[in-house]
Amino acid sequence: MKKLINSPETVVTDALEGVAAAHPSLSVDAENKVITRAGGPRPGKVALVSGGGSGHEPLHGGFVGYGMLDAACPGEVFTSPVPDQMLLATKAVNGGAGVLHIVKNYTGDVLNFQMAAEMAEDDGIEVIPVVINDDVAVQDSLYTAGRRGTGATVFVEKIAGALAEDGADLAAVAAVAREVNQRSRSFGVALSSCIVPAAGKPTFELGEAEVELGIGIHGEPGRARAGLTPARELAAVALDAVAADMPVGGDLLVMVNGMGGTPLIELYLMFNEVRKYLEAQGGNVVRNLVGNYITSLEMQGFSVTVCRLTDALTRLWDAPVDTPALRWGR
Amino acid sequence: MKKLINSPETVVTDALEGVAAAHPSLSVDAENKVITRAGGPRPGKVALVSGGGSGHEPLHGGFVGYGMLDAACPGEVFTSPVPDQMLLATKAVNGGAGVLHIVKNYTGDVLNFQMAAEMAEDDGIEVIPVVINDDVAVQDSLYTAGRRGTGATVFVEKIAGALAEDGADLAAVAAVAREVNQRSRSFGVALSSCIVPAAGKPTFELGEAEVELGIGIHGEPGRARAGLTPARELAAVALDAVAADMPVGGDLLVMVNGMGGTPLIELYLMFNEVRKYLEAQGGNVVRNLVGNYITSLEMQGFSVTVCRLTDALTRLWDAPVDTPALRWGR
Repeated sequence: MKKLINSPETVVTDALEGVAAAHPSLSVDAENKVITRAGGPRPGKVALVSGGGSGHEPLHGGFVGYGMLDAACPGEVFTSPVPDQMLLATKAVNGGAGVLHIVKNYTGDVLNFQMAAEMAEDDGIEVIPVVINDDVAVQDSLYTAGRRGTGATVFVEKIAGALAEDGADLAAVAAVAREVNQRSRSFGVALSSCIVPAAGKPTFELGEAEVELGIGIHGEPGRARAGLTPARELAAVALDAVAADMPVGGDLLVMVNGMGGTPLIELYLMFNEVRKYLEAQGGNVVRNLVGNYITSLEMQGFSVTVCRLTDALTRLWDAPVDTPALRWGR
Repeated sequence: MKKLINSPETVVTDALEGVAAAHPSLSVDAENKVITRAGGPRPGKVALVSGGGSGHEPLHGGFVGYGMLDAACPGEVFTSPVPDQMLLATKAVNGGAGVLHIVKNYTGDVLNFQMAAEMAEDDGIEVIPVVINDDVAVQDSLYTAGRRGTGATVFVEKIAGALAEDGADLAAVAAVAREVNQRSRSFGVALSSCIVPAAGKPTFELGEAEVELGIGIHGEPGRARAGLTPARELAAVALDAVAADMPVGGDLLVMVNGMGGTPLIELYLMFNEVRKYLEAQGGNVVRNLVGNYITSLEMQGFSVTVCRLTDALTRLWDAPVDTPALRWGR
């Protein structure tokens, strides 16, 4: 295992100390593993809390800031945070208008966020959870009942965050989060495995010229193994799966996301193939993200996430955002 | 070779089409391989042009925009752009106040930019080249006479770009570019090789637990091979080399840069070790970048760049910037 770490046991806390040092806009509790916006809760604003296993950076901590999340709680690598962490985060950012929990659909995350919500409600804090399940690759896979939550999480955090910043109430913020999830679909392809530090060896093995179609963000199996084909064919496989589940015409927000070990030059190349495919299907890619946004440690590969925009969603996407990993227009 | 490409021959043009589609703020001539700001030259403003081989993305194309570069010309992967490209870029962005060429110190780049500058001056455009040579690892390595130019290029493009945006003249913009270069030092460490698409195989081989200390951004040899050690020891090796060449006290701008295949969680962890080392030496890391800014395709590893700030340089660093890869404060 070749990693820039001190020891497998301290990866997350060591990295959180680095996040704290790098970003004065964040308040980082490295011991309890909670990242919040500096400056305490925003009175009267609906607060957004997300979290999940570490190893997907910049998700979620890199999206804490104006116009997006109020708090993130990172678990150990590929391991759900515990309810106490989520409760701590929820209490820390509650400004009296309620808290939205943005939960990727993995069994551990869903159960733990549910417990945290119940504890928060015992403390008088109104919580609505929204579960993200955009990955069309498989149903009921390792760690998940139903579909997995992947790239749409970034869209939900941005768009719901913008609506919360506008002063909308909790029900409205939760509704737009659900709407974005329902209008989004993802599919991922791996060219290589990742290595969980505590395991010390690759999560799975792929042949020299083999790819995993429909990979999960923890290296969970997808639909099939196949030979490595040109980028345009990989784009077609991914988008055929998306288009089989949701029409891809109209105005689209598209993310071509790197899994962590794929260079940016390849992601731009993939974005070009994705765009051409979608245009041929009547889609109009009016907004995009190309880069590493929801990663799987050092895995090579990409995922594509397509969201069918409305005018209202486009306005919320365009609204100012100021986080370590997403920043524009303020 | 596992890459998201269509063919080794079309990697750069395919990726440039993706850049064009992703960023309406850029004007991309994919045939001639020139990226400029959309909207034509800025009359009266000193223009900044950089370029070099592809494979280091987001450098340089990702830094074209308000407050940074006016144009970038990407060569083939790890291959200098040709003088005609540089001339085309120079003419395209000349606003009558002269053009700064920011040149990383590689023999091909230096010669080609020199020819381009001569041709531009024949056309009546004043050009000043500034050569970046911040990498303390080796002297006179493969491709380079003297020191290599690496991470300081990002700092120079940002800071000189801000001064140009303020309306400074060409001599002043060139002077601040040289100042930033002189006040900056870098050192890189590779955990794995990269694979140039046209070569189809790793540029070099490393053992299972071996690292290359002082790696170049094209996989050029560094100072030594060594066993993989904890992150804090790798930080010390890199910063010992920097500190042997330049005092590292006072206010510092520090970049912990990923080589392309290293996950962000490891870069934050490295940043924490770098910061602790520098603080122990009397340094105060007042500004930072943590992420992939000058990469080497899918290479795993990191580089650290330290710049000794002045108040004036800090103000220019903080000035608004709006490019695909660096954006704040506008």
